[in-house]
Amino acid sequence: MQALRNYIDQQTCSTVSDADFALISDALLPYKLRRKQFFLRAGDVCRHKAFVVQGALRVYTVDAKGNKHIQLFGVENKWVGDRESWLQLTPSPYYIDALEDSQLLLIGCPQAQELVRKVPLVAELVRIQDEQYAIETQKRLHAAISCTAEERYAAFVTQHPDYVRRFSQVMIASYLGISPETLSRIRTKLSHLKAEPSGS
Amino acid sequence: MQALRNYIDQQTCSTVSDADFALISDALLPYKLRRKQFFLRAGDVCRHKAFVVQGALRVYTVDAKGNKHIQLFGVENKWVGDRESWLQLTPSPYYIDALEDSQLLLIGCPQAQELVRKVPLVAELVRIQDEQYAIETQKRLHAAISCTAEERYAAFVTQHPDYVRRFSQVMIASYLGISPETLSRIRTKLSHLKAEPSGS
Repeated sequence: MQALRNYIDQQTCSTVSDADFALISDALLPYKLRRKQFFLRAGDVCRHKAFVVQGALRVYTVDAKGNKHIQLFGVENKWVGDRESWLQLTPSPYYIDALEDSQLLLIGCPQAQELVRKVPLVAELVRIQDEQYAIETQKRLHAAISCTAEERYAAFVTQHPDYVRRFSQVMIASYLGISPETLSRIRTKLSHLKAEPSGS
Repeated sequence: MQALRNYIDQQTCSTVSDADFALISDALLPYKLRRKQFFLRAGDVCRHKAFVVQGALRVYTVDAKGNKHIQLFGVENKWVGDRESWLQLTPSPYYIDALEDSQLLLIGCPQAQELVRKVPLVAELVRIQDEQYAIETQKRLHAAISCTAEERYAAFVTQHPDYVRRFSQVMIASYLGISPETLSRIRTKLSHLKAEPSGS
């Protein structure tokens, strides 16, 4: 739980009191997931959101041809889940599985809503997270509709150098909405550009 | 201001008190924009978010080749602005202009933050809006990275029949991240499918 406590303090630029943190801890359920295990399957209701203490998950859809489209990587200090399904109890279109052995903290929607009411710092945390999420998603949407595959990969490498090391090329291509072959060509081109001495 | 009052009541499933609504009204600046006038230009800081009482605006970027990429249409009861620039006072990459003569209500970031602190119903409204925005953007991102142009257009028509009537084909193509020629082909194909008697 210390990881979560540090995360709350850091995100809200504040110090969560012991009493508030006791309420938060009580609402969360520790959960372990082994690599390749599913957290959610398309068609099911997403009953919990998961805070990632350790490990990595991916959120994805599978199209009619069986291709996976990765919506999100969830790593340490990120939340994963399908917000619409979690809020409205509708079947989710998403699969979520573990890319590494993972330690999670789960929360249901009623418990989260109660915490928001009871603990002002949690309301503040939710507001900050939603803001960050909106800004990140807006950037990604902007890139998806207006940048070339090469520009998208370059921005991805700058924003997420850790993801480049952590996840396979096939997954990164899926996340960027390009084919693995295109990503491979882009990487070759970029490595040639880097290898060329400047001024030549 | 009545439009805003109705909007707050409807969104929060509540009734805003006269005292709270007086605080809200005081924080908002009525503003008119004629068709083709700019609300924001790339490179400027987005000092205000705008609530659209009447009219329509578009939020877009312009790439190196001069192509416009529409991120958002802002119509009645929607907010437009660049949240990152508004929050962090950074230059915005977006242009925002009016597609129709528009009536707006503007709010600066410090005024909005003060309202959130003073009026719990505003905090609730912001939370609900952020939730809706997150769900909508997630769907749009999902469509952008995993659906064909045809699927994207079909979903757009279902979700926004009013936009199809209100905005030009060129703008809708830009919003969907496809070329106007592709959109034209898709529309022709869909109209043929509709015209064909079922079972034939």
